Amino acid sequence: MSQRVRIGMVGGGQGAFIGAVHRIALRMDDQFELVAGCFGRDPENTRLTGEELGLEPSRCYASWEEMIESEAALPESERIEAVSIVTPNHVHHGPACTALRAGFHVICDKPLCISLEEALEMKAAVAESGKIFALTHNYSASPMVREARERILSGELGTIRKVYVEYLQGWLSEKLEESGQKQADWRTDPARSGPVGALGDIGTHAHQLLEFITGDRVDSLLAVLNTFVDGRALDDDDMILIRMASGATGTLCSSQVCFGRENGLKIRVFGTRGALEWDQEHPNDLKITGEDGVARNLRTSTGAVGESANALSRTPAGHPEGYLEAFANIYKNFASAVRGENNSMELPFPGIVDGVRGVRFIGAALESNKNQSWVSLPAEDC
Amino acid sequence: MSQRVRIGMVGGGQGAFIGAVHRIALRMDDQFELVAGCFGRDPENTRLTGEELGLEPSRCYASWEEMIESEAALPESERIEAVSIVTPNHVHHGPACTALRAGFHVICDKPLCISLEEALEMKAAVAESGKIFALTHNYSASPMVREARERILSGELGTIRKVYVEYLQGWLSEKLEESGQKQADWRTDPARSGPVGALGDIGTHAHQLLEFITGDRVDSLLAVLNTFVDGRALDDDDMILIRMASGATGTLCSSQVCFGRENGLKIRVFGTRGALEWDQEHPNDLKITGEDGVARNLRTSTGAVGESANALSRTPAGHPEGYLEAFANIYKNFASAVRGENNSMELPFPGIVDGVRGVRFIGAALESNKNQSWVSLPAEDC
Amino acid sequence: MSQRVRIGMVGGGQGAFIGAVHRIALRMDDQFELVAGCFGRDPENTRLTGEELGLEPSRCYASWEEMIESEAALPESERIEAVSIVTPNHVHHGPACTALRAGFHVICDKPLCISLEEALEMKAAVAESGKIFALTHNYSASPMVREARERILSGELGTIRKVYVEYLQGWLSEKLEESGQKQADWRTDPARSGPVGALGDIGTHAHQLLEFITGDRVDSLLAVLNTFVDGRALDDDDMILIRMASGATGTLCSSQVCFGRENGLKIRVFGTRGALEWDQEHPNDLKITGEDGVARNLRTSTGAVGESANALSRTPAGHPEGYLEAFANIYKNFASAVRGENNSMELPFPGIVDGVRGVRFIGAALESNKNQSWVSLPAEDC
Amino acid sequence: MSQRVRIGMVGGGQGAFIGAVHRIALRMDDQFELVAGCFGRDPENTRLTGEELGLEPSRCYASWEEMIESEAALPESERIEAVSIVTPNHVHHGPACTALRAGFHVICDKPLCISLEEALEMKAAVAESGKIFALTHNYSASPMVREARERILSGELGTIRKVYVEYLQGWLSEKLEESGQKQADWRTDPARSGPVGALGDIGTHAHQLLEFITGDRVDSLLAVLNTFVDGRALDDDDMILIRMASGATGTLCSSQVCFGRENGLKIRVFGTRGALEWDQEHPNDLKITGEDGVARNLRTSTGAVGESANALSRTPAGHPEGYLEAFANIYKNFASAVRGENNSMELPFPGIVDGVRGVRFIGAALESNKNQSWVSLPAEDC
Repeated sequence: MSQRVRIGMVGGGQGAFIGAVHRIALRMDDQFELVAGCFGRDPENTRLTGEELGLEPSRCYASWEEMIESEAALPESERIEAVSIVTPNHVHHGPACTALRAGFHVICDKPLCISLEEALEMKAAVAESGKIFALTHNYSASPMVREARERILSGELGTIRKVYVEYLQGWLSEKLEESGQKQADWRTDPARSGPVGALGDIGTHAHQLLEFITGDRVDSLLAVLNTFVDGRALDDDDMILIRMASGATGTLCSSQVCFGRENGLKIRVFGTRGALEWDQEHPNDLKITGEDGVARNLRTSTGAVGESANALSRTPAGHPEGYLEAFANIYKNFASAVRGENNSMELPFPGIVDGVRGVRFIGAALESNKNQSWVSLPAEDC
Repeated sequence: MSQRVRIGMVGGGQGAFIGAVHRIALRMDDQFELVAGCFGRDPENTRLTGEELGLEPSRCYASWEEMIESEAALPESERIEAVSIVTPNHVHHGPACTALRAGFHVICDKPLCISLEEALEMKAAVAESGKIFALTHNYSASPMVREARERILSGELGTIRKVYVEYLQGWLSEKLEESGQKQADWRTDPARSGPVGALGDIGTHAHQLLEFITGDRVDSLLAVLNTFVDGRALDDDDMILIRMASGATGTLCSSQVCFGRENGLKIRVFGTRGALEWDQEHPNDLKITGEDGVARNLRTSTGAVGESANALSRTPAGHPEGYLEAFANIYKNFASAVRGENNSMELPFPGIVDGVRGVRFIGAALESNKNQSWVSLPAEDC
Repeated sequence: MSQRVRIGMVGGGQGAFIGAVHRIALRMDDQFELVAGCFGRDPENTRLTGEELGLEPSRCYASWEEMIESEAALPESERIEAVSIVTPNHVHHGPACTALRAGFHVICDKPLCISLEEALEMKAAVAESGKIFALTHNYSASPMVREARERILSGELGTIRKVYVEYLQGWLSEKLEESGQKQADWRTDPARSGPVGALGDIGTHAHQLLEFITGDRVDSLLAVLNTFVDGRALDDDDMILIRMASGATGTLCSSQVCFGRENGLKIRVFGTRGALEWDQEHPNDLKITGEDGVARNLRTSTGAVGESANALSRTPAGHPEGYLEAFANIYKNFASAVRGENNSMELPFPGIVDGVRGVRFIGAALESNKNQSWVSLPAEDC
Repeated sequence: MSQRVRIGMVGGGQGAFIGAVHRIALRMDDQFELVAGCFGRDPENTRLTGEELGLEPSRCYASWEEMIESEAALPESERIEAVSIVTPNHVHHGPACTALRAGFHVICDKPLCISLEEALEMKAAVAESGKIFALTHNYSASPMVREARERILSGELGTIRKVYVEYLQGWLSEKLEESGQKQADWRTDPARSGPVGALGDIGTHAHQLLEFITGDRVDSLLAVLNTFVDGRALDDDDMILIRMASGATGTLCSSQVCFGRENGLKIRVFGTRGALEWDQEHPNDLKITGEDGVARNLRTSTGAVGESANALSRTPAGHPEGYLEAFANIYKNFASAVRGENNSMELPFPGIVDGVRGVRFIGAALESNKNQSWVSLPAEDC
């Protein structure tokens, strides 16, 4: 066996959601050993979480700064090799830059950070350190998303004309943040979420999925950011008209007040010779319409699906995989990259460029919403 | 039996699509007798069509003007009572106004006409004549659309926040009009279709459905009209941001270049306490999410559905009805109105107000597209 | 236009269900003129029904015997050409034989009749009269059923191995017959329904669909007929193991006590090189898996569907047709046959052979149920 | 943290499918430490697999006998506590009995074993050892299966009348065993699979799911076991009529020659007041029809679902979990039982009784198939 990658975690203490997801993801393929952590601002939470996870008490740190510094001081064969950042948005930039500069690889939750300044500094830190940086836009690691991308890039659908992407949830239909629910609390707080709510939390997933799957980029947009719940400080609903660099047009809608919707991330792409559709709530299906106009349902782990998509599946056809498995694919590929088994900083997982583009997307949407006019995004971040 | 309503038809000769639909619709419930017609500009077409339909040759007219004039001259017990107009858009205004003024009720295909001037004149003609005017926005007569409307109006979903309506087709993905295909030919020709293509042909259906089902109206919009197929004179794709008078927001997308899509008219409405979704390609289902967050699938002709919706069904549960049956509902209700069995000019079928609003919607979209800014629609047309 | 076929109806008075369906079906394509009728045993019902339908009172008859006799005495250009029989099962044999012998074509509801003796006499009457006989196994006239049959007969699926057909309803889950509901009343009464309940009412549809779609025949069966509702005299649930003449095996389940199911007729066929599935509640879809293992969804009125299937559609793709339209296809094709426009007594509609086979199927199931052993069906009825 | 359970694995070397699944399952919730193994009959395979898994070479054993003996000789704080058996069917009985007698808990793949004699001996070994025994009928640990069971047991559906369960696959449509494909190879070999093929491999899953979800048991059955592929020694298709002890009836079909089907395990249950349906290919949905006849779609991790079902989910609503997560639930609950955190040998995971009943089910089906008559199963195995 390749040696497991030693990793430390920032965030993800008791009461958090995404931290537990990251830990399942890193365990699934047995590529990591979680050996250190600062699981929250409260040392007691960190202590308890670490105990629950079987960590040595000495490697449960009171602050991420301490974790990075202390780990860097350990012998190379012992210290962590990578840091996983699963904190609210405002605590991505700090630990990421510090970790990179200390020589650690970083895998970070999305959105990248809360301002373009932060984003560009993170980008510089990645470049200067030469370390691996992965951003957990987990949906892009779902096998059928990979398949969709490959088919679009191969030209199977012809020239893309229309893109419709939506990410509709309903869980913030009421003022859940008042109940103290931890997920709602920080996501609706500008101090921790940044200048946007729904747009950062889920709109950036939709944006990244759109660019990833089409291999194209959003060239300009016209955005309306709404806040439906009284007294909420950030947008809980967004609707955006999109022009892609290729000339395709479409809509991107993200909402957390679509009553009853769970986690409705869905993309539809129409070209001159074909079309496809993917819905993350049924991730093992890829609906594709060929030149003959007939709708097919491609399924994971079947002969109809290409090698690189099938490499992201662990089970035979008909044995459904889902959210956690896609998340784990990011970790698995990150581990390979950390070990130098592949040398790409782009694929096979989202990285710093996706992150910077997401932050630019947020900025453009804010500007557009303010002026109610079209705003362009620059072409290149790499 | 109530006496069948004697009706004459304008348009719908050989090669037409919608004329045959209207004729099946008027036959289905045996409420009409088609006794006269001018089925096209070509008298030979009219003669052949009339022969095929078993009409008396003397009542197959060379022009709609002649039909209206000649029929008006017949004894009251013999002459037509109503005119069905199934021509391309530019030949709605003339026969409708003339027929109304001659004392005939009118049932007319959508969109109402090709300019606001025409629309307002038609509205005046309806008002002055006191005759019944029905506009065949057939989808609004589908049982589950009626059910959806009643539930929304009753407040079951709470305050409506989000509306997403789309009407996606793919049949104009290529330049079908060059092949001489009759449907494509006139729909892409400004002289016959009017100033818009897809927006008039299907966007107005989406707009009417949206206003009908919510009991609300589009207050302002921001529209982008696209033409994807080279050399096409009119829009074949539209994407529109919407604000409803109630404060709800959403999107309305109509397209005829969504490769592979057949007739994808679909509406989703989200309120503060519930949500619903209807898809005309599966018209016997109404997906509704209640306050408990559970998605239900209501089905036509079941006890779960209200009286007025069930009155639009002819078969027991599980015996699917579709497009033709909904169309026939418009005719059936029109017949009742003609006989004075009901006295509403609004419900239970779309009428002149829907038509005028549709024309205003087109006008606002054109203006918005030109200026890339929000455009308001006036509140009242009645 | 071809002259409309003059037709008289037996059964279908007020309170009946299927009579109204037959009338919509015969009106839809304008191929018939309903000019005579005996709509029930009660002359007053017949009078009222006739009046509602606009029939001449003189052609509203007190008995079917009188109708056939009186009509036969009318001048040829005036008298009916065909009889539509829409009565309960025990009143199929009498009017059918009498009508055929009087020189009238017959279109009759299913099942054919209530005993093999009756069936064979009806078969002889058809043969001797040389008249057209159609049995309204309406599902076989759904476009995608025709498409399925053609693809199977062409060998596209390879050798058929497995067939699963089911027809599940829930409307007799309670003892509805006690409420006086007319449909439940006669269907659960041996005197009118014959020796079986659910098996005759819906099981025969499943059986005919199975044989029609595969072009194969049930060679032997092992049946269990259950009665779940206390005090009910006939089976309300059936489960049958099937061997086809070709060697394929499978199950046929029909039930009227599957709580909540509406009209769940569904067939799945698996061959050595492909598979398909059709569900009458979504009749415009045909799910087909090709040699590549990919599931496709074929849709009515598209280029992916063959001519003979598309000939059964009236609307473009995406404009759903349903139960009534399939029913109307039987009538349309029956009219063509009556006029001698085609000369087949088998296709394009189910006829006497389907009817006799259905009665044999019932007989075999009864025998098997009694002895709990396999029972063979004879190969040939033509 | 509770101490991880030290576990050893029998089977699951390179080329195996289910071994890798078990290992992901045991890792997912971090409740186990895999410290020993005999991964196959070939010591080199065991060595390589162990190396890949990071095991100490000294605990990679040449035979399962050696593993059990050597581990038992280790100090209690070091030796394994449990054995996971993931071998072909004929190698369940030996290691299970030996491990139990050596004082180890056992988690074993299904079916239990290849004869009733073996099964009863295993049952005795469980009873005598007092150790925990889990059988990985993984589908029963899917959240919505648990929800379905609880609702049926609570009486929500009334008295159950009809059950339809099917497990349809297509992967053995051709003679895959000739290609050397390892999964096909042993499953079609009587020496390793036992006296049945499809029935043992997947029919027992269907049987266990049926009994688990209804809380009822198969009382008698009439089975037809088919072999469609020439030269195959065991059944590849089964169709079985079922009577439950409660009086419900239905069908159980398992097949591996349903071309194109992946892993189609699906159950439908109809009671006097409601119905439900679960399909393992869409495991996060539970379709349930209430007394009002309306079909609802319950979803995992929502408020509509009970506590014990939600306890089996790791993610919020709309974040799909699947096959691996359900498998992991068995392991998680097994770990709790091993630690004495619960004391049930029945729930929350399938155990020896499910296993013995499965073997009896196979025996009854074989006998019924031979005689083509109904065969009863005894009521009690506990």
